[in-house]
Amino acid sequence: MYSVCLSGMGETESLAAQALSGNRRALARAISAVEDGDSGAIELLKEIFPRTGNATVIGITGAPGAGKSTLVDRLAAFYRTADDKVGIIAVDPSSPFTGGAILGDRIRMQGMATDPGIFIRSMAARGNSGGLARASADAVAILDAAGYNKVIVETVGVGQDEIDIVKTADVTVVVLVPGMGDDIQAIKAGIMEIGDVFVINKADREGTLRTERELEALLSISERADGWHPLVVKTIATENSGTDALAEAIRSYSDFARAHTGKQESRRASVAEIRIREILRDRLLRLALDGAVSQAELTEMARLVAERRRDPYSIVEEIIGRMGLGAGGDGDCKLKIEK
Amino acid sequence: MYSVCLSGMGETESLAAQALSGNRRALARAISAVEDGDSGAIELLKEIFPRTGNATVIGITGAPGAGKSTLVDRLAAFYRTADDKVGIIAVDPSSPFTGGAILGDRIRMQGMATDPGIFIRSMAARGNSGGLARASADAVAILDAAGYNKVIVETVGVGQDEIDIVKTADVTVVVLVPGMGDDIQAIKAGIMEIGDVFVINKADREGTLRTERELEALLSISERADGWHPLVVKTIATENSGTDALAEAIRSYSDFARAHTGKQESRRASVAEIRIREILRDRLLRLALDGAVSQAELTEMARLVAERRRDPYSIVEEIIGRMGLGAGGDGDCKLKIEK
Repeated sequence: MYSVCLSGMGETESLAAQALSGNRRALARAISAVEDGDSGAIELLKEIFPRTGNATVIGITGAPGAGKSTLVDRLAAFYRTADDKVGIIAVDPSSPFTGGAILGDRIRMQGMATDPGIFIRSMAARGNSGGLARASADAVAILDAAGYNKVIVETVGVGQDEIDIVKTADVTVVVLVPGMGDDIQAIKAGIMEIGDVFVINKADREGTLRTERELEALLSISERADGWHPLVVKTIATENSGTDALAEAIRSYSDFARAHTGKQESRRASVAEIRIREILRDRLLRLALDGAVSQAELTEMARLVAERRRDPYSIVEEIIGRMGLGAGGDGDCKLKIEK
Repeated sequence: MYSVCLSGMGETESLAAQALSGNRRALARAISAVEDGDSGAIELLKEIFPRTGNATVIGITGAPGAGKSTLVDRLAAFYRTADDKVGIIAVDPSSPFTGGAILGDRIRMQGMATDPGIFIRSMAARGNSGGLARASADAVAILDAAGYNKVIVETVGVGQDEIDIVKTADVTVVVLVPGMGDDIQAIKAGIMEIGDVFVINKADREGTLRTERELEALLSISERADGWHPLVVKTIATENSGTDALAEAIRSYSDFARAHTGKQESRRASVAEIRIREILRDRLLRLALDGAVSQAELTEMARLVAERRRDPYSIVEEIIGRMGLGAGGDGDCKLKIEK
């Protein structure tokens, strides 16, 4: 029988309260807690959950080198002029390094790092434990509850992890650049489907017109279930050109989604289902690795598999068996519950 | 109490035997079984596992549009001239469409589709159930056991999923093209770390020299734990130029790894540990979703979360509780085992 403690903890309660009151150090600690999967994180998230749902969450994705970070900085600055509070979560699923990877390799938000109306946080994959989509969604929830009314989630690449991360946003922006790739492969089906707004950045480059035409052609043949026609915006982020048009396009989609409440609700419900699955997968793996098998034992098991002396499938059965989720023995069932 | 049946099944045993004997339809069905997570798949994999470990598994990754598919086709044709049996698994984590996505949008392996010494299979993400890395590794194991002595795993993009997939290969090849992106962001740290061999494809293009210099500079400052210096190969896949040099570079690394058995063993052990974790995560989520909560119930729970009437964290606790993995109540523990 396994037991996880999930209760009480005055320290965490006060951390939640401090984070909600806008204390930046408390915010940073709260996000670290969900990132690390601390035992108190669940309580903190349960506590703040009722206060979420007020922010417009904007997901921004696109291939590396598309200029997403500059674009995000410009957009954040634009929102600040309207006195919005802006949270930015920069997520890099392809890097195992936290912090440095995204924030370190460029000069970011000069003059903004000290603006109390902006909170920037980078998150990266840590080893193989996964859970980055879950952790970044939790971080969004914390910033949302703390009163950041525009939360931008920016990813580095265009893989499935990135898609999983940005598709939980209220508005999803896909950033392209002229001539990137040079064939249509660069604009993958998976990415096309999630974009509510498309940006052609570096729009002073050769090939802009061609990229725009290809994009419009692709968009014209795909019909969205919600009836929204994705908008295309051209920007030159380095010159701050097109930022207002991008903000306007984001607002247009938000208005559209609000006006079609049923559609928004069904999107939010499917996002919620994805979140439940992610939290569940994360928690179950953690339960197994924390309780049913030690790291030393896992290392030894892996050595036996590498030497082909054991197979990984029966090892997993053994671990699941230790968790009390036993393996039965009859012929042709798939899975059943025995009470 | 949950119970999974994992036993017997003469039908599956004979499927394994047929696949091992090289029956192509049986191979295809066996791979479909692991892809779908069929109940018999575990038995099949346990049965074939002792016969794995003979193939050289080559993982090939790189940004979309880098020409990976053409390169893979050339490499496969090269191996065929040496009478190798070649298995190709083309994996697209960013697409929810199986089959068509990779094989459909190009004319692949013309004249090779009928060669019995080549087996091609594409795999794509299916919804949000994840598990593609686990499924593709299982497919590699099946082809390996069936006597395909060169198994090429090709991915579409460069996200974390792609990295997870190709890093389990014996040799990992990263494909770049001149001028792609145009800043160093395109060559991400995560990708640089996994490459045993780097290919600059489309090497007749402008910018080849610059890309080569940047790559060499990056490689010269990074030191690998195993002492291997990654090789750089220039190719023009469309003209079949450089294919032999690529095959030679792959062989060089294989030889190096074999000559340093300790290093190879430790790589295989860490790959095995990743696999155990992936299989475990997959199985646990499936146990929960098949046994502890119905789809209808999950949909209803998600609706309540979307309406902020319930929070996802306590829902997950409830599901875990139903699985018999109960939540305890004391103050400051992390996780403990109660017997």
